[in-house]
Amino acid sequence: MCQSCNDKPETLTREGASRRDFLRSGAVLAAAPVATSMIAAQAAAQTTNGTLAESKVQAWAAHDTEGNFAPYTISRRAAGAKDVVIEIMYSSICHSDVHTYKGDWGMPHFPLVPGHEMVGRVVGTGPEVTKFREGDIAGVGTMVDSCGTCVNCLADREQNCLNGTTFTYDSADKISGGVTYGGYSRKIVVKEEFALRIPPGVDLAGFAPLLCAGITTFSPINHWNLQHGQRYGVIGMGGLGHLAVKLAAAKGAEVVVFTTSEDKIADAKRFGAAEAYLWSDDAAIGRQMGTFDLMLSTVPVAYPMQPFLNLLKLDKTLVNVGALFEVQGAQGMLMAFGRQSLAGSLTGGIAETQRVIDFAAHHGIAATYEMITPDQIGTACEKVVNKEARYRYVIDMTQV
Amino acid sequence: MCQSCNDKPETLTREGASRRDFLRSGAVLAAAPVATSMIAAQAAAQTTNGTLAESKVQAWAAHDTEGNFAPYTISRRAAGAKDVVIEIMYSSICHSDVHTYKGDWGMPHFPLVPGHEMVGRVVGTGPEVTKFREGDIAGVGTMVDSCGTCVNCLADREQNCLNGTTFTYDSADKISGGVTYGGYSRKIVVKEEFALRIPPGVDLAGFAPLLCAGITTFSPINHWNLQHGQRYGVIGMGGLGHLAVKLAAAKGAEVVVFTTSEDKIADAKRFGAAEAYLWSDDAAIGRQMGTFDLMLSTVPVAYPMQPFLNLLKLDKTLVNVGALFEVQGAQGMLMAFGRQSLAGSLTGGIAETQRVIDFAAHHGIAATYEMITPDQIGTACEKVVNKEARYRYVIDMTQV
Repeated sequence: MCQSCNDKPETLTREGASRRDFLRSGAVLAAAPVATSMIAAQAAAQTTNGTLAESKVQAWAAHDTEGNFAPYTISRRAAGAKDVVIEIMYSSICHSDVHTYKGDWGMPHFPLVPGHEMVGRVVGTGPEVTKFREGDIAGVGTMVDSCGTCVNCLADREQNCLNGTTFTYDSADKISGGVTYGGYSRKIVVKEEFALRIPPGVDLAGFAPLLCAGITTFSPINHWNLQHGQRYGVIGMGGLGHLAVKLAAAKGAEVVVFTTSEDKIADAKRFGAAEAYLWSDDAAIGRQMGTFDLMLSTVPVAYPMQPFLNLLKLDKTLVNVGALFEVQGAQGMLMAFGRQSLAGSLTGGIAETQRVIDFAAHHGIAATYEMITPDQIGTACEKVVNKEARYRYVIDMTQV
Repeated sequence: MCQSCNDKPETLTREGASRRDFLRSGAVLAAAPVATSMIAAQAAAQTTNGTLAESKVQAWAAHDTEGNFAPYTISRRAAGAKDVVIEIMYSSICHSDVHTYKGDWGMPHFPLVPGHEMVGRVVGTGPEVTKFREGDIAGVGTMVDSCGTCVNCLADREQNCLNGTTFTYDSADKISGGVTYGGYSRKIVVKEEFALRIPPGVDLAGFAPLLCAGITTFSPINHWNLQHGQRYGVIGMGGLGHLAVKLAAAKGAEVVVFTTSEDKIADAKRFGAAEAYLWSDDAAIGRQMGTFDLMLSTVPVAYPMQPFLNLLKLDKTLVNVGALFEVQGAQGMLMAFGRQSLAGSLTGGIAETQRVIDFAAHHGIAATYEMITPDQIGTACEKVVNKEARYRYVIDMTQV
């Protein structure tokens, strides 16, 4: 990762044509101090007009369920009055991206441009935008539009919009037609309400995963009200799980990790877990019976859940955010005996996503990641499936 | 049912040997007004000594998984200082009894004397008993002993005793050795803490089912805090379900029943449901999507649950009290999308069981039942499985 990007926007330049494009986009001027001179202001106004226009954008698309990614040019709409144009700097790979191109949740529209964890620089703002100015760092997560007027939207649950949330990729695009294209691309145009403010001084690449993995693991500890000192079990420690550990540890919970990867035991403790065990460690798991106030399952595939439900105290809940398939191996009798619950949870609203970003910034939390270039997307996706990610692959769009 | 039993205890007599036994037991004297005369008091004291002794008791046992019930003589222990001796008047058939003798939850000990919903008359009290006096009406539910000192017992969760709850039948009997024998019998000896006070003026036969079906369906509406006017879905309307309807309707909830039996539609409304639908009525069920504040599944077999989970509002819970097998057809993605929960619940503690009895008495609620004689137990059990019960079979032990 280019750490200096976080601190010195002016270093965000590229060589050759890319460099020229970047300068033409006005990013450097936009990042300069406000009201430096009339000349600068005029130049910015001119270039802004350019950035607001409809444009062709370099993206990386899967063309089939095999996960062979290739460059693909997409159109981004002209920015509307309340839209921001974001030049994407970092886009991270969520296991959902893999599930989607594989067709695990239904056949997607190909070419598919995934990516719903992205951070970049605002390079253009529609005339009615108030939340951002050019040069700001912004993030986009799992959704880019909703009606804004239904009861769920008004309750900050845009992901449950009664008139249909527009998700960030492979979702019907009500504004431009066709389907949405995600963050495996150089640029995105999005309503300002769906862009998140990212503090510029943080590790921007490490913040991209907060836009999905972060909010997905933060929302349950809010909703189920995890308290300081309570025992919190995290099942599976990949992209979601490792953020779950960091966030819950920062909340003061006593975090215990259950992993299938031996090398993650030490990492779990480094991330703030009090204890970490292998799933195969029957003795250790047996000792945890009935001790947890809340558990979170981040495992991205279905597996028998009762052994972990057994670890809950009476009346407590195991929240599943990963295995978005048919529930396996939950036993009615045992759940009834302890009055335990198995719940689902999936992302959070925009306001809550802003909360996790602010919380992470305040506590110095970011994802642990490996930086890759766009040509490595396909290989990285395979590694995600093979549990080789430590712990998120972040695609560096500044190197294109 | 002998309704007069409810009002006039002195009519509780039997012909021939049974009648003599009954008179010998002191029930008539015990039911007489307090302090009638010294003679009566002395007689009561004498007969009490008799009723406290260890005794042979007529019971009805299943001898194998086929459900062939036959008379079987069991021993009841001598009453301890805090024990009450209850002559059972009414014992009702819970689907759990059938599951147990069939071995659905593991092989039971045969001969098996089921029954954990019973109401009868106290015919003997140990010298330290304070909660009952002879002649009182008492009920026994799903459990007869627990340690009384663990954190769960102290929290009125005797069913979760950390030192092992003694359930009413087929459970290791820590006092007498062997296994416990349930309510398909003429008499039971039980710690007074595990006997419930039954108001003598109620429909005693209709109150027997409250001891399991009643508390099992009452506890979830307390725990999940069902409010007046909220929409409450009851899935399956048999022994448990019909009480769920009556109890929730009395709480002021808007109850909607989902049944597979056409004739139960009218009954559901008679029991207080606002609406009732067949499971096969896709159109009606489709209209219920996302409308329920709480749902209760009382169906005694596993079935695909997602179609009903879909009927919950965001963040709400479907409580399963019936399908005590592996959960089927709950979809992680859909549960996550609406942040819904699937919870288990199983009976309630003694204090809460007393609450449902008092609540039912206050609201004039009792089970709807068909009275049978002990020789009909096997046939009735088959009818329970075949959904023919309307809605509980109550065994009349007064006719033996």
